[in-house]
Amino acid sequence: MATIEDIAKATHLSIATVSYALRGDPRVRPKTASRVREAADALGYTVNLSARNLRAGRTGIIGFAAYELRLQQPSQLASEISDATAQHGLRTIIQQIASGDRNDMNTFQRTTSQLCDGIIINPSGISQEDLHRLSKSKPLVMLDSYASPLQYDTVRTPQQQCASKAAHHVASIGCSRVIILGAPYTLRKEAQQHDDIGLHRVAEYIAALHDEGIEVDPRNVINIPWYSGAAAKAIHALIKEGRSFDCAICLNDELAFGAIRALADCGIRVPDDVAVIGYDGVTQAARNTPSLTTIAIDWREFARKAVDLLVSRINHTNEHDGPVALETGYQLIIGESTRR
Amino acid sequence: MATIEDIAKATHLSIATVSYALRGDPRVRPKTASRVREAADALGYTVNLSARNLRAGRTGIIGFAAYELRLQQPSQLASEISDATAQHGLRTIIQQIASGDRNDMNTFQRTTSQLCDGIIINPSGISQEDLHRLSKSKPLVMLDSYASPLQYDTVRTPQQQCASKAAHHVASIGCSRVIILGAPYTLRKEAQQHDDIGLHRVAEYIAALHDEGIEVDPRNVINIPWYSGAAAKAIHALIKEGRSFDCAICLNDELAFGAIRALADCGIRVPDDVAVIGYDGVTQAARNTPSLTTIAIDWREFARKAVDLLVSRINHTNEHDGPVALETGYQLIIGESTRR
Repeated sequence: MATIEDIAKATHLSIATVSYALRGDPRVRPKTASRVREAADALGYTVNLSARNLRAGRTGIIGFAAYELRLQQPSQLASEISDATAQHGLRTIIQQIASGDRNDMNTFQRTTSQLCDGIIINPSGISQEDLHRLSKSKPLVMLDSYASPLQYDTVRTPQQQCASKAAHHVASIGCSRVIILGAPYTLRKEAQQHDDIGLHRVAEYIAALHDEGIEVDPRNVINIPWYSGAAAKAIHALIKEGRSFDCAICLNDELAFGAIRALADCGIRVPDDVAVIGYDGVTQAARNTPSLTTIAIDWREFARKAVDLLVSRINHTNEHDGPVALETGYQLIIGESTRR
Repeated sequence: MATIEDIAKATHLSIATVSYALRGDPRVRPKTASRVREAADALGYTVNLSARNLRAGRTGIIGFAAYELRLQQPSQLASEISDATAQHGLRTIIQQIASGDRNDMNTFQRTTSQLCDGIIINPSGISQEDLHRLSKSKPLVMLDSYASPLQYDTVRTPQQQCASKAAHHVASIGCSRVIILGAPYTLRKEAQQHDDIGLHRVAEYIAALHDEGIEVDPRNVINIPWYSGAAAKAIHALIKEGRSFDCAICLNDELAFGAIRALADCGIRVPDDVAVIGYDGVTQAARNTPSLTTIAIDWREFARKAVDLLVSRINHTNEHDGPVALETGYQLIIGESTRR
């Protein structure tokens, strides 16, 4: 079995550096850390979990609260987080939390305080009190928190750049009558009062479209839950009342899949009559017919940054720093749904 | 807050029956149990978890080992299991297990023995020794186990009926040159030696197609992992070497999505030139273009049966019975992918 010494030899690094890198210490440069990880993988190095944890008084387990595992984005993220913790020799337990369910939250609190070294959680539908209680019990990293001022460590997407890139694409293909599916009409100033990813996505889109000379009619911003069925229903209703639009901007990919299917059922061609654009970049986007144009978040990097940050907090390597916000990579993937 | 007494009044049942039903006691008839559950939902009844668990020396938590949460079927099932345990006032923690990963299995073992009242697990990639150890520590229900003789409680799909119904449909639309994606060519007798869902699915299909007068050429049974990308690659390779077929039977829906996309990219029309049929019935099947014909398993019922069975074992209401196998409902949903 490979040892830390073997990795040090293979990478020409010191044993201390390798050990720091494997523990996710932020003082190790990312490039060095990934060199170490690759060598560890190549050599088949596996952390001796119980030994390390016993020394440190730890369990080696991270608790992740997930919403709606039946949807692709949360389940893909749960999978990436499991993989990212495994890179540190840790393991993840996942609990599906229904927004506002007291028993869910109580169990999560109990499980994580008894059994976990740290917590990864999404702010949607969690009260400030619960967050406060969780964060007092264990180190905690939030996913996609846009609270200002920042209260907890978070990893999030650069919403403004994402929306700006997508809005530019929408304008460049000649669209002007835009509908947005997935949130109420919200301006940036108002969105900043709330820690809600939907409000931030819609507000940044409205601002970015404005910068491209496209004004969004508030009646064309439809507040529906992020399911494909809800999008299909909304599209059918809009068509029925004769609303005219040439682009459907969807705040997640599920909505876009539902919109595309409903438009096809109404005999409206995508992208010729209506362009459709999603958000998230789930696996299904590329294999859909037509393939989906989407703001694809790099979920692997997103998960890795969240886990690395959490591990550094667990190891107390930066306990005196205030909360930090890390941003993740993204790209606008142009699919058939807007190619014209 | 609603009490057990309120539910008893609303359902005209005794308090004892309501209490048994809420605990998932199998002596309560399913019809009565669902009446109680509906009344409990309508009245907003929530189990006082900690009180009940303290009395019983329990944690109120079920451990579920999931494979590949990034795929739709496992994540949908994880979600349904979470919902089904909540119906009993219990909660589920989920761990993603990589097949053959020792650290994953050790953590799962430790987590469940410390923190869980029972275990739900899939047999794929788990050694007999691990299963034995898990089952000694806590009550355990297997998902889709086809071991014979039966060693553990299981909930599974009636594979023979599923394949027979689908094969009949394939024959009825005039297909005869069939390819099967997702397992090696296997006959029923051989499949029965293994506890592997893929081998059982393919063997039942080969037998059922034979009954319809369709012989499957062993070269047309392609052993690939259950990802859409693998199916796309296989289709491209078959087309390139000039293999001729009029029906692609896929052992899960992911494979079918990949096959449909690859056929479109090769200029082959679905269903006109090639009919495509999936297995599982994930949400995406209905909204795909073309919508997918698939053997749709009732995952809600599947999860509920697994959880009810596990809860009855935890409550020792049938501890002297041997292992049981329950079957779940299914239906063949005819989509556009075979409609001609």
